[in-house]
Amino acid sequence: METQTKAARRGPKPNPNTRDNLMRVGVQMLHEAGYTATGIKDIVDAAHVPKGSFYNHFESKEAFGKEVVDFYFDGGLVELRARLCDDSIPPIDRLRGYFDERIRGFQATDYVRGCMLGNLSLEVADHSVPIRDRLAAHFGTWSGLFEACIAEAQSAGAISNRLPAPLLAEFLLNSWEGALLRMRVEKSDEPLRAFVEVAFGSLLI
Amino acid sequence: METQTKAARRGPKPNPNTRDNLMRVGVQMLHEAGYTATGIKDIVDAAHVPKGSFYNHFESKEAFGKEVVDFYFDGGLVELRARLCDDSIPPIDRLRGYFDERIRGFQATDYVRGCMLGNLSLEVADHSVPIRDRLAAHFGTWSGLFEACIAEAQSAGAISNRLPAPLLAEFLLNSWEGALLRMRVEKSDEPLRAFVEVAFGSLLI
Repeated sequence: METQTKAARRGPKPNPNTRDNLMRVGVQMLHEAGYTATGIKDIVDAAHVPKGSFYNHFESKEAFGKEVVDFYFDGGLVELRARLCDDSIPPIDRLRGYFDERIRGFQATDYVRGCMLGNLSLEVADHSVPIRDRLAAHFGTWSGLFEACIAEAQSAGAISNRLPAPLLAEFLLNSWEGALLRMRVEKSDEPLRAFVEVAFGSLLI
Repeated sequence: METQTKAARRGPKPNPNTRDNLMRVGVQMLHEAGYTATGIKDIVDAAHVPKGSFYNHFESKEAFGKEVVDFYFDGGLVELRARLCDDSIPPIDRLRGYFDERIRGFQATDYVRGCMLGNLSLEVADHSVPIRDRLAAHFGTWSGLFEACIAEAQSAGAISNRLPAPLLAEFLLNSWEGALLRMRVEKSDEPLRAFVEVAFGSLLI
């Protein structure tokens, strides 16, 4: 009986299209305006759904934020894997090609927004353990893909740097996030090009 | 006459102690909670001053934010210069010592807050040109101090890496900001130690 009452209180069965819609809007708004600046009302208004629908799908803004982080990373992961796991290309060229492609993307969008994982790391990680945990997991996955390329290049003798591949991969990822941070301030690709020049001209050699 | 009326409208002469008080509270709140999450009301309440006092000193929250950025950086610049311009220590040891000292600071404060310049770069740089310009200026000053150490070490033969000192300095600074970003997610000094290991074990050698 209690269960029935609770179900009735929750309203109609959640519509999966509404959920997708909220997620897509969420990625866009959290990426552009940030987590704190985006209210649930902003999200439901932009998704053209009533506010109650939000709570049919998500317990809270934090639960929503956590899923938006997953949705954002999983979306990018397809291309990331396609580029970094392509055995037809030497591993160092895969890595370099990945960054070159990302730089072209930022050039085309006037150096705004950057990486949502990075943004939320600075804005939210101190204040939300669930969101922080998702960020940590995704950074781990991402770093692991860099690591595989670096280890393969080291084995093939294409990189003579003998520092451990996991260490180099982590440094590479964090340095990329730092270059993106500086890009947001300089509104230029110069920090990204500096990253590539040092990473591939002095570190992964 | 018009001037008199305007002066009267502005209320009593601004109290410089109130200004300092607002700035100190501003640094703390913008650093801990972020720019968007901190309202003017939060600031005046924490500083125990009436809201009108805020506008005696600052035109807007943005004008305040810009000055808080300067106040924060100028405060840190004293130690930065003391460490990096100390001729009695070899330049590479000065750089290394600077990062080691910063890492001890973050260890002592449980890896929260990070660098306010970095935080505001991701949170505000897309939305405020005046704040972005201040961030860019301070990053430039900071990078210049790294550059001087690197150039001196290159001249002395302590660094054999022949990439230009300005490029290495910029990469170093951005990579440090990236390591701090990752620290906020991992809640560990591991990204900072990885930064030092790669920067001083593979790049600045």
